[in-house]
Amino acid sequence: MDCNKIVLIGAGNVATHLGLALPDAGYEVLQVYSRTETSARELGEKLGCTYTDKLDEVVSDADCYIVSIKDSALDEVLPKLVLRNRSALFVHTAGSVPMDVWKGLASRYGVLYPMQTFSKQRAVDFSVVPFFIEANSADDLELLRKMAAGLGSKAYEATSEQRRYLHIAAVFACNFTNHMYAVAEHLLSVHGLPFEAMFPLIDETARKVHELSPVEGQTGPARRYDENVINRHLSMLSDEPELARLYELISKNIHEYATKPKEGL
Amino acid sequence: MDCNKIVLIGAGNVATHLGLALPDAGYEVLQVYSRTETSARELGEKLGCTYTDKLDEVVSDADCYIVSIKDSALDEVLPKLVLRNRSALFVHTAGSVPMDVWKGLASRYGVLYPMQTFSKQRAVDFSVVPFFIEANSADDLELLRKMAAGLGSKAYEATSEQRRYLHIAAVFACNFTNHMYAVAEHLLSVHGLPFEAMFPLIDETARKVHELSPVEGQTGPARRYDENVINRHLSMLSDEPELARLYELISKNIHEYATKPKEGL
Repeated sequence: MDCNKIVLIGAGNVATHLGLALPDAGYEVLQVYSRTETSARELGEKLGCTYTDKLDEVVSDADCYIVSIKDSALDEVLPKLVLRNRSALFVHTAGSVPMDVWKGLASRYGVLYPMQTFSKQRAVDFSVVPFFIEANSADDLELLRKMAAGLGSKAYEATSEQRRYLHIAAVFACNFTNHMYAVAEHLLSVHGLPFEAMFPLIDETARKVHELSPVEGQTGPARRYDENVINRHLSMLSDEPELARLYELISKNIHEYATKPKEGL
Repeated sequence: MDCNKIVLIGAGNVATHLGLALPDAGYEVLQVYSRTETSARELGEKLGCTYTDKLDEVVSDADCYIVSIKDSALDEVLPKLVLRNRSALFVHTAGSVPMDVWKGLASRYGVLYPMQTFSKQRAVDFSVVPFFIEANSADDLELLRKMAAGLGSKAYEATSEQRRYLHIAAVFACNFTNHMYAVAEHLLSVHGLPFEAMFPLIDETARKVHELSPVEGQTGPARRYDENVINRHLSMLSDEPELARLYELISKNIHEYATKPKEGL
């Protein structure tokens, strides 16, 4: 089974970065669809392929249709899209949308979820982006595995249920981590200190986790629940009761992980 | 005023890494003191200098005594140490200990606080370690600035009060961030997914903050307080009420930072 001719449904960050990378991996992007004509044109011109803003003009001779649109638009787009081709492979790239969104619509379908924060300003190095893949047949799973490998990426098979937890885990490791940086920046700037002074510590904390599991590598007052330091810090945060609550809750949680290992750790 | 001949008081991680780096910056380490004879010998031999475990055998002809010992041992060590030399510069390297711990003991004193997580296993690149310095005279502050510069490090002047907040900020940016990684690892492993899949996201989150302030760069459901996603995640965490509480509190805090900017952000 071939999977060389691709149509991209969507013209956002994920579609853009995939569209730029797929030709180097030996795939041909035939067409870009976006419901916004200017977005479709912009990406189509960037990739040197045709483009359309009408679903019934989507070409019917592709091997694979990759859908990267807002979750809330899927219900409307998918039933119309599948009419264009009855035998192709249909995949979406959304982390939290189950594969079964295709059930009863297409005969060959799956998920190709690249886990990374994409932004237009920053180039994407797919060799460090893991893909989580799922398909309703072993053959199509293999096609998706090949596509990820062609992009230089690691591919992990993951069920729709696993992908939901992957998303929560990413919220902790990315959004919540970033908020810890934001609190640090706030505390430093209130006391006249530059946030950039924190970069070496931030970098080393991220690097260390590649070698040492985060529970093993934990340091600081919370790990040993040093009440002297913790109470001093809490009183220093008394002007900001929400920060104090956050400090206390995370510290207790750290101590608990250090003393009563969690499942899988 | 000269500051070339150094005695290291302490033989732990900070003393070790400073002792290894100072000679290349043109300083001479005369001696190592540790109250544990084997630690003193081990570091003395590593640095090719004399060593002692007796405070009254600390040499008296140094220009500068750098104290890197446990906070709780300072009260006992400092009064005896200062008797060895009345004119030298005395500094400690502790983040949360005020400079005034020297007051009434020494005439020239200060703080040389390198902010990084040091561990014996990992080499230290001082060119990316910021030093926070303080001294009771402008001349000695200049000597400390020169020492940091000699090590290739950035030096920031910081009062004892600022250093206390620096420590809390570091707890957020390092220990608490690391705990977010630990929670992610726990959630992934419970659902049969490898933690290493999260590394690209962790790395990108840390890299991004060098270019974009963490409040500006925040993404995800909490920033816009997407109640659909947040409530779904909370119900997925219902088996672990403490994680659910943490999730909710951090999400609310992120939303607050996004909508009501904090001082200095």
